[in-house]
Amino acid sequence: MEEKEISQAVIGRLPRYLRYLGELKDEGVERISSQDLSALMKVTASQIRQDFNNFGGFGQQGYGYNVGYLYDAIGKILGLDRQYKFIIIGAGNLGRALGNYINFEKRGFIFRGMFDQNPDLVGNSVRGVRVMPMEELERFISENDIDIAVLTIPKTSAVSVAERLAGTDIRAIWNFAHVDLNLPERIQVENVHLSDSLMKLSYNISRYQQEKE
Amino acid sequence: MEEKEISQAVIGRLPRYLRYLGELKDEGVERISSQDLSALMKVTASQIRQDFNNFGGFGQQGYGYNVGYLYDAIGKILGLDRQYKFIIIGAGNLGRALGNYINFEKRGFIFRGMFDQNPDLVGNSVRGVRVMPMEELERFISENDIDIAVLTIPKTSAVSVAERLAGTDIRAIWNFAHVDLNLPERIQVENVHLSDSLMKLSYNISRYQQEKE
Repeated sequence: MEEKEISQAVIGRLPRYLRYLGELKDEGVERISSQDLSALMKVTASQIRQDFNNFGGFGQQGYGYNVGYLYDAIGKILGLDRQYKFIIIGAGNLGRALGNYINFEKRGFIFRGMFDQNPDLVGNSVRGVRVMPMEELERFISENDIDIAVLTIPKTSAVSVAERLAGTDIRAIWNFAHVDLNLPERIQVENVHLSDSLMKLSYNISRYQQEKE
Repeated sequence: MEEKEISQAVIGRLPRYLRYLGELKDEGVERISSQDLSALMKVTASQIRQDFNNFGGFGQQGYGYNVGYLYDAIGKILGLDRQYKFIIIGAGNLGRALGNYINFEKRGFIFRGMFDQNPDLVGNSVRGVRVMPMEELERFISENDIDIAVLTIPKTSAVSVAERLAGTDIRAIWNFAHVDLNLPERIQVENVHLSDSLMKLSYNISRYQQEKE
């Protein structure tokens, strides 16, 4: 372990830095001051400096950040300097939407397989990837060195599928099922609970209304 | 303004409390101690007490929380004691997945309309809701008192659609386009940037691997 422990809050902000730096790079910008980056991203310059200090700074005081260097460095911290092979379990609308999202490929996430328990969906394909029956799950993961399983199935089946995944060498689960999964520590889990996000929105709507009243 | 300012971190945790309390309620559990809730949710009892203290406590010391009361109280804080009408802009796979998700309805989010700029998709319907052309957007929002617009369109069109929405009485945008939107303060925005979530996962994969090496 070389790096010190970095809070998930800081990690959570890195993809947004990466997105803005990628756009600056595309526009041909080579250097940017923390003040200009601050104005662009609408976060304080001190927040930016604090966040970057977690990784040794990246910048020369008064001279600004090198956009390309910073972009590569943050990408590396986020583990984007390598490729990950993923499968999608659940071939419904959400699974198909994620399978069709080619931007993931640009970031090094390679779509390799799709599974569904519904025999009517087996044999369909999404971007050239065939939907396979659930019986083939473990064998496919093992033979193809799959890193990530994306769960786009109802919460009722997610728990038992997660148990099956715990018996494989999968390294991470991107979980869209609306349930918290219990998995061994070696399997990283990132939950996307869409209803939770929608409730944050309704909180902010009703809070704003109360403030006006 | 009756309530004190509550951090977005606390608000972000409330939907998860609500989910667990809803499950307890469904199982017929009437009271639960902060210790038992802590074990169930895998957060510390002190975190739970701190979070609930933001809203005046909810519990009687040593007697546990009343599950039904707590469920309703948190639901009310989250603004779930009323209904919100939403439209989805973008009738691709992700838009259709969200339109088909009937759990939103159970929480009071009512799916009222769908829009797309692609004439081939106009006239299709998702759960009985017809896809309309973008020309009808402003009129439909106004005539139907729409509260929330869900953006499931590419980032290239999201900025201009958000500008059009800023000219309406819409109260919130649930933004799945991978771009930050600039909107008047009266319009609440909640971003779901899926690639950002996937990058957090790759960070945790590579971090775990580094720790093992």
